[in-house]
Amino acid sequence: MTRRLDPTLYLVTDTVLCAPRSVPEVVAAAVAGGVTAVQVRDKTASRRDLLALTRAVQQTLADRPGVAVVVDDALDVALLAGADGVHVGQSDLPVAEVRALAPQLHLGLSVGTPAELAAARDLPPGTVDLLGLGPVWATPTKPDAAAALGLDALAELVRGAGGTTTVAIGGIHADRAADVAATGVDGICVVSDICAAGDPRAAAEQLRAELR
Amino acid sequence: MTRRLDPTLYLVTDTVLCAPRSVPEVVAAAVAGGVTAVQVRDKTASRRDLLALTRAVQQTLADRPGVAVVVDDALDVALLAGADGVHVGQSDLPVAEVRALAPQLHLGLSVGTPAELAAARDLPPGTVDLLGLGPVWATPTKPDAAAALGLDALAELVRGAGGTTTVAIGGIHADRAADVAATGVDGICVVSDICAAGDPRAAAEQLRAELR
Repeated sequence: MTRRLDPTLYLVTDTVLCAPRSVPEVVAAAVAGGVTAVQVRDKTASRRDLLALTRAVQQTLADRPGVAVVVDDALDVALLAGADGVHVGQSDLPVAEVRALAPQLHLGLSVGTPAELAAARDLPPGTVDLLGLGPVWATPTKPDAAAALGLDALAELVRGAGGTTTVAIGGIHADRAADVAATGVDGICVVSDICAAGDPRAAAEQLRAELR
Repeated sequence: MTRRLDPTLYLVTDTVLCAPRSVPEVVAAAVAGGVTAVQVRDKTASRRDLLALTRAVQQTLADRPGVAVVVDDALDVALLAGADGVHVGQSDLPVAEVRALAPQLHLGLSVGTPAELAAARDLPPGTVDLLGLGPVWATPTKPDAAAALGLDALAELVRGAGGTTTVAIGGIHADRAADVAATGVDGICVVSDICAAGDPRAAAEQLRAELR
């Protein structure tokens, strides 16, 4: 595994928003529409169920080796599934320890403030592969998230990232995607705009069009 | 790591029952009273908090290398903490996969029915180091547990274990400990009888006395 991930349009799954469709079903449509990476996130699933869900997503993407599959938080699930990466938040497992245990995984870290960015930049080089910056706007899919950044604070975090790949997350819909891209981020993360869409493929296509 | 664990009196921690005392405080007293192994269990803690809790317990037992520290369910936490073992239930990570990823860990598996025991015995030799048999009696500390076995069904599972180390769990208090031991189990697991005790050391001493 090469720790490669195309961050352009990064889908974070939400099992409830995908229902009654299965997560793999929505993922397949979204990737057909232009999603470039997928993070499997389900904070309420047991480890066993999250492992099964991750494998189902991997199976769905078996013919799309360019689309990385990342597991949210659950390092053990990422290792057992042989996922491409793991993404941790500020209250998940400590990022430096995750890196030490899993040198082969693409490792993302959520950052929501200048202080968190400074701490991330103080980590040894190569610890973090991607910084998830957000929430840009308030979002119902992550009620425990920090205060919304807005575009100006987002742009400041992007400038401070020092060349580490960045993605923006939180309340990003197609009509805002171009504004977010203009901050200089390498990609955008989307949850509800795809997972809750009647046509996830069309939603992804529209997002990709806005990003061009 | 040698995958050794003395199952005689195996404490499973419950953070809420230990309160207002800290878990490490209760563990220290319980080990002074004769507890031989400790499983850190907190299904509601984040991985980050469970890692910190596990390390605090390890720190408390730094001068007691004979007392194994096992983590419930969270394989990643067990690996990061360098714990002695991990314990999985029937709905946690698949036991054969845990073994494949962590050959060095003492690996326990919960078993509550003859069918689950048969499945455990079908695993490759060396997969499971310890079978947790239960619940012997209904218990409020694990409301999602299967139906209570009672002593006769417990004895049957012990006979069917084929030499794998067994411990009994679920509703075991000092006044029942000798009856449980008479089934032939190698040890007993205790949660509330120690965690909720006014004097955890005395509670452990009483349990050890009943087991003699």
